[in-house]
Amino acid sequence: MATSTIVDDAGADAAFDLPDFDAFPVRHQIAMATADGQSLRIVWDDGFESRYHPMWLRENAPDPDTTHPVTREQSLFLLDIPDDLAVTNATLDERGGVLVEWSTGGASRYHPGWLRAYSFDAPERLFSLPKRVHWDGGFTHEVPRLDGPTVLSDESELGRWAEALHIYGVAILENLPATPEVIDQVPGRLGPIRDTNFGRLFDVRSKADADSNAYTSMTLPVHADLVTREYVPGLQFLHCLENGAVGGDSLLADGFSIVETIRRMHPDYYEALKTIPMGFYNKAKDTDYRMEGPFIGFDADGELDQVRWSPWLRAPLQASFEDTDRLYRALRHAFRLGESSEHQITVRLKPGDLLGFDNRRCLHGRTGFDPSTGSRWLRGCYVEREELHSRLRIVARHRRAAEVAET
Amino acid sequence: MATSTIVDDAGADAAFDLPDFDAFPVRHQIAMATADGQSLRIVWDDGFESRYHPMWLRENAPDPDTTHPVTREQSLFLLDIPDDLAVTNATLDERGGVLVEWSTGGASRYHPGWLRAYSFDAPERLFSLPKRVHWDGGFTHEVPRLDGPTVLSDESELGRWAEALHIYGVAILENLPATPEVIDQVPGRLGPIRDTNFGRLFDVRSKADADSNAYTSMTLPVHADLVTREYVPGLQFLHCLENGAVGGDSLLADGFSIVETIRRMHPDYYEALKTIPMGFYNKAKDTDYRMEGPFIGFDADGELDQVRWSPWLRAPLQASFEDTDRLYRALRHAFRLGESSEHQITVRLKPGDLLGFDNRRCLHGRTGFDPSTGSRWLRGCYVEREELHSRLRIVARHRRAAEVAET
Repeated sequence: MATSTIVDDAGADAAFDLPDFDAFPVRHQIAMATADGQSLRIVWDDGFESRYHPMWLRENAPDPDTTHPVTREQSLFLLDIPDDLAVTNATLDERGGVLVEWSTGGASRYHPGWLRAYSFDAPERLFSLPKRVHWDGGFTHEVPRLDGPTVLSDESELGRWAEALHIYGVAILENLPATPEVIDQVPGRLGPIRDTNFGRLFDVRSKADADSNAYTSMTLPVHADLVTREYVPGLQFLHCLENGAVGGDSLLADGFSIVETIRRMHPDYYEALKTIPMGFYNKAKDTDYRMEGPFIGFDADGELDQVRWSPWLRAPLQASFEDTDRLYRALRHAFRLGESSEHQITVRLKPGDLLGFDNRRCLHGRTGFDPSTGSRWLRGCYVEREELHSRLRIVARHRRAAEVAET
Repeated sequence: MATSTIVDDAGADAAFDLPDFDAFPVRHQIAMATADGQSLRIVWDDGFESRYHPMWLRENAPDPDTTHPVTREQSLFLLDIPDDLAVTNATLDERGGVLVEWSTGGASRYHPGWLRAYSFDAPERLFSLPKRVHWDGGFTHEVPRLDGPTVLSDESELGRWAEALHIYGVAILENLPATPEVIDQVPGRLGPIRDTNFGRLFDVRSKADADSNAYTSMTLPVHADLVTREYVPGLQFLHCLENGAVGGDSLLADGFSIVETIRRMHPDYYEALKTIPMGFYNKAKDTDYRMEGPFIGFDADGELDQVRWSPWLRAPLQASFEDTDRLYRALRHAFRLGESSEHQITVRLKPGDLLGFDNRRCLHGRTGFDPSTGSRWLRGCYVEREELHSRLRIVARHRRAAEVAET
């Protein structure tokens, strides 16, 4: 891993092909490559200019001494590169790439598609996910449905399931067996199941010793699960085993669409929900999870990321009288929209149906049911949203690699 | 759940005792309680004045129709309270509490310790955790050690283990059996194990088909695991089963202490590390986790929350040339401190030792080892930091309840 292992020209040449995880088609040719003392400068055929930092180039050199060919993790340690590393020469090669010579001796060769994709002066999101679609914009209150057995046997159909969960925040797989092990097998195709204090798998049915409102026969207004956690589970799956009682319909609403409606119609409520820190807490006998934060959360890009939508796990608010008043008005308005026919849809799950949804976006609830008229049994689990994102990126990676292979 | 179920005086009286999860000693008496039309006003014996919102009081009324006595979750739905709910009368009772009468009929009774604790006009953190101690301030480079079998048999020793993990970010349990099932049993005492793409439990030993640098015999500079995730695992446990090879010592460093040193000595580096978004990514064959964010992260209170300390899972930086230069300087400085004898300590794990640490704070690494001289085998798992926090709050809850019982 010392700098003495930096590859010579022959090694650089062998490593020219892009790895599957970082393949980019060549859309622009390099017109000129120069070493300006410290860095590499490139002028592209469309006139665009890029400048690359020597440390950055060295760290990302496409050779097996830099990235371990088996673990696919970096094995060159940043501190093994000398402080004063410089690019001493840069030349175009016959394949359209650049051969960079180092002040330490040796050289590295870079692919033009890769260099352009990572061009410093026009940083772009290279691996962005498909855009989410809110239910009031193109999603006509029909939950996407896919055939469960096909999803399990066909990788591209698995990809479509993942896309529906990401884009619409909800999807139902149909025609799966109504057997208890399905919940342990099918969501796991997207990634590991997240264990919680309610168990790795949980049974939603009326219990005498219920440690959650979910385990009664009560009506449940729409809500998100586990809002008391720093990291609210990203995906929830509920597999229907029995649904023979009177009542017990499933209720769904798009929390992001509701938030967007509030933003447009009641900016004051929106402001309260995004700025006033609330407390969320779990008062169970053996666990005491607490979280503080606003009702609405955003990601690093300022995009809506989650709603901590909980009718029953909010702690006594600790805020000024005025903020308390503002927040209660905003919250009651939000809850009213969540229960309105404009935003809420009803689904009757059939035994074998697997309902999946983005638990940080899509709210779920149920109508009350009468346990004396039949039994209702759903089995559930959580999977993280980033497992879904990983799956979507693998789909995109394979598409990109196929595109590159054709160029 | 309708407002008609609001308890009458008798019910309010029966519900006067505070629940275990929300018990506060009476440190101040109520001098005067009045209804000011909308809200409840209280003057305390020390002259402090509090004002309580009617919606807030009603939602947090201590009766079984508001909070379900079995699920311990709220069963009164906020929308079941009328918009114009008002406090019509407030009277002191002989036990020092306040009886609040509602405009809807009925009344609720509130405990003075609880009312004072949640007083709106002096919001305080009621359930704060012990303060963390950085290794350069009181922690003299000795990892806290506890007797494993005692921790397993004694609840208060389990509490001490949890406190050490929280306060110092590291602790070793000694004298546990050197058998493969220990890792599945002991960390689980703090909360559920977090499953990942590396498995629910993972074996750290040299493997031919290594999908991580950890599974080679390479030297590993100190690092945090799984920085490619939105939610980096909070706790990591490594149980030593065999450690007979030459080399393979464990290295530890306090990331927070290093960040604090950088903040004091190199404010420019500190600024770069806390503001320039970096990419972290996993390039495995079947998963593609990506995360963007600065190297240093903070919680909602502005306290240091994590370092995404990764020598080998950083994606090619997408930043301006100037930011790239700043970040590389800062990062190399941080990595140098992490490898320095001032910040790094060495521990030789014995078979049976269980090393636990805060993976978002305490960095870990190892010296390279020679697999031909003997075998080295650690078994690991992750548990979330909020499970540790829950455990610490349960300890505090029991202490508080005992204090209240004595008053």
